[in-house]
Amino acid sequence: MLVMEEKIAQAAAVMRELDIDLWLTFVRESATLPDPAIDLVVGQHCTWQTAWILGAQGERLAVAGSLDVAAIKDRGLFTTIVPYVEGIGGVLREQLVKMNPRRMAINFSRDSVMADGLSHGMYLHLCDILADTGLVERFVSSEGIMAALRGRKTAAEVAAMQAAIDVTLEIYAAITEHIRPGVSEQALAAMILAEVQRRGLETAWDEAHCPAVFTGPEHAGAHFRPTERLVEAGHVVNMDFGVKVDGYCSDLQRTWYVRRPGETCAPAEVERGFTVIRDAIRKAAAALRPGAVAWEVDQAARAYIMEAGYPDFPHGLGHQVGRSAHDGGIGLFPRWERYGQLPYGKVEVGQVFTIEPRLPIEGYGVATVEEMVWVTEDGCHFLSSPQESLLLV
Amino acid sequence: MLVMEEKIAQAAAVMRELDIDLWLTFVRESATLPDPAIDLVVGQHCTWQTAWILGAQGERLAVAGSLDVAAIKDRGLFTTIVPYVEGIGGVLREQLVKMNPRRMAINFSRDSVMADGLSHGMYLHLCDILADTGLVERFVSSEGIMAALRGRKTAAEVAAMQAAIDVTLEIYAAITEHIRPGVSEQALAAMILAEVQRRGLETAWDEAHCPAVFTGPEHAGAHFRPTERLVEAGHVVNMDFGVKVDGYCSDLQRTWYVRRPGETCAPAEVERGFTVIRDAIRKAAAALRPGAVAWEVDQAARAYIMEAGYPDFPHGLGHQVGRSAHDGGIGLFPRWERYGQLPYGKVEVGQVFTIEPRLPIEGYGVATVEEMVWVTEDGCHFLSSPQESLLLV
Repeated sequence: MLVMEEKIAQAAAVMRELDIDLWLTFVRESATLPDPAIDLVVGQHCTWQTAWILGAQGERLAVAGSLDVAAIKDRGLFTTIVPYVEGIGGVLREQLVKMNPRRMAINFSRDSVMADGLSHGMYLHLCDILADTGLVERFVSSEGIMAALRGRKTAAEVAAMQAAIDVTLEIYAAITEHIRPGVSEQALAAMILAEVQRRGLETAWDEAHCPAVFTGPEHAGAHFRPTERLVEAGHVVNMDFGVKVDGYCSDLQRTWYVRRPGETCAPAEVERGFTVIRDAIRKAAAALRPGAVAWEVDQAARAYIMEAGYPDFPHGLGHQVGRSAHDGGIGLFPRWERYGQLPYGKVEVGQVFTIEPRLPIEGYGVATVEEMVWVTEDGCHFLSSPQESLLLV
Repeated sequence: MLVMEEKIAQAAAVMRELDIDLWLTFVRESATLPDPAIDLVVGQHCTWQTAWILGAQGERLAVAGSLDVAAIKDRGLFTTIVPYVEGIGGVLREQLVKMNPRRMAINFSRDSVMADGLSHGMYLHLCDILADTGLVERFVSSEGIMAALRGRKTAAEVAAMQAAIDVTLEIYAAITEHIRPGVSEQALAAMILAEVQRRGLETAWDEAHCPAVFTGPEHAGAHFRPTERLVEAGHVVNMDFGVKVDGYCSDLQRTWYVRRPGETCAPAEVERGFTVIRDAIRKAAAALRPGAVAWEVDQAARAYIMEAGYPDFPHGLGHQVGRSAHDGGIGLFPRWERYGQLPYGKVEVGQVFTIEPRLPIEGYGVATVEEMVWVTEDGCHFLSSPQESLLLV
């Protein structure tokens, strides 16, 4: 609740900065279709159509169905509550006309899922409600507000993420002794989940894919759940995993090598693949500072890997992390269509990014490392103690 | 998975019935913003922008990011997969132009949250992708498809719901002996949750409000979580609760009366309030048959309660139940603005509705009973064994 109070206060300041008077989150049955703004500045779901309105001058107004009023009062975040019984239209129109915003943010965005919680049907409904008021013409996207609120982490947020990162690295350290020939991807995943449960935590994304565990050259590929495939000597093993602490996520990857009988270290090509990844992360971190253009940070790592003779990796270098493992706003993305305008954004103080390049090591598997860094005034700070060398099994 | 195969086959038939050629579910990061169609006919989330396309002739096409292809293949529901790396636009446009649908359903609806999973940003993005193809003009709402798929329950679906209902009534029976003066709403809720956990089940909606427990005349009101309020002699107690079995929900309410020292039965006004509710449910059930207009069923109960001298209740008489406790499509709703066109729909064979009127009993509490009924060829069938008399404590 404290974090949400901080975020609501931050929202008013950001609205003033962006010259936006009001921010409307317009939902119904939001437990079924949860606008991501709810989780950030509302903290409760209502059944009936509800308008959650925050203003640049600190206004906190909810227009809500009569049966939902008691729960909103109880939560206490929205201090003015206007109830309705039969329909929200007349009351909402009246309130918004009275507030007369010059620019009014609503939750739609081509580029950012976090700022795109308004459904198209509710958008049409809102346009009907506000017909002939002149307000529809004053709609702007809330993506700027959301990017700032999700991106500029408060101390409390970073502390929660640091705790999540520490637990994740602890569990990675604990799992190392269980990686051995004959153990399956699924068995390793189950051990990790047991560790998460033992600590009373939850995973940072859905348990079927968190942890993701990949072993050897023929593994199923990123975004795939752990399989019955067995670890063998001569495999590169990697995992992608995170937990939530106080609602905030970690998201980290580590790479192991399983030595063959007689091997004291990894083969040269495995060592080299790992080292190129590690150094690509260092290159990116060196480029990551306030004011840097996001795609250029991606490019720093991507070019380094390709110049070393490895193929381009088919995803962005890094995304923001927060309440969601893939949090909103800009990312360290290449200038590909699917990333829209996000690669062109500028890095800001307070943002937390992953850095996660990958490359294939033919005949062995994939080298992937994912670190988490926090943007500071003069560069960035590693929240995760970075993987400096291949973990040998 | 079997139910999902049934639903996909049913979707093609419904599309032919509604003269719709294609049904497109267009999402990204759907674990964050879950279009309700995913849960019904897709069964998996992807990170990148994904187009899930079902056709009236049985087509099952996914246009998906390259990293998501392995997981889609593995799930096996979508038999044609077209991958992309940099952006979905060109590939999706090409596929849809080739398929050339005369009418193409997308997930937007003013009235039904279940058919409104397309975000406004993704709608704009889709319009950009299909600019100048003539396809944007062929968009129709998928609400007819969703209403049929969610409404017309298969035997497997009804069996799961029956199991959920049976467990709910069992737990209600077990909790009766724990209702006594001095026990709090929260303590009763905790006992019910412990029963749910002991059976390895989950609640039908969020645990903070499921069960809802209300005691006495001054309780917090519907949609409110259980409080520290204590049961006292002379209280009417009611609860609203359901569980999920195999992904399908129950949603039932029961009413108790806590006798005062010396009372052998409830006071006449409490008895009368309960009896009016019970008989209002009977009236509604008698009116509920295929072809009935939804609002008329609501009206049958509402008018009966008001004629008996009680105030109008501030919500619809009943909603559909399925994978969600508040499932999609028409409901037994009054003709209020907030219900849009839903009250004007006609009841169909196979739909499962709640019937849940309420009335206040001054000085004692609220009488609410919620039953679940299944629409049959010639009327409706109670899935829940209906509460015939006040439960006396």
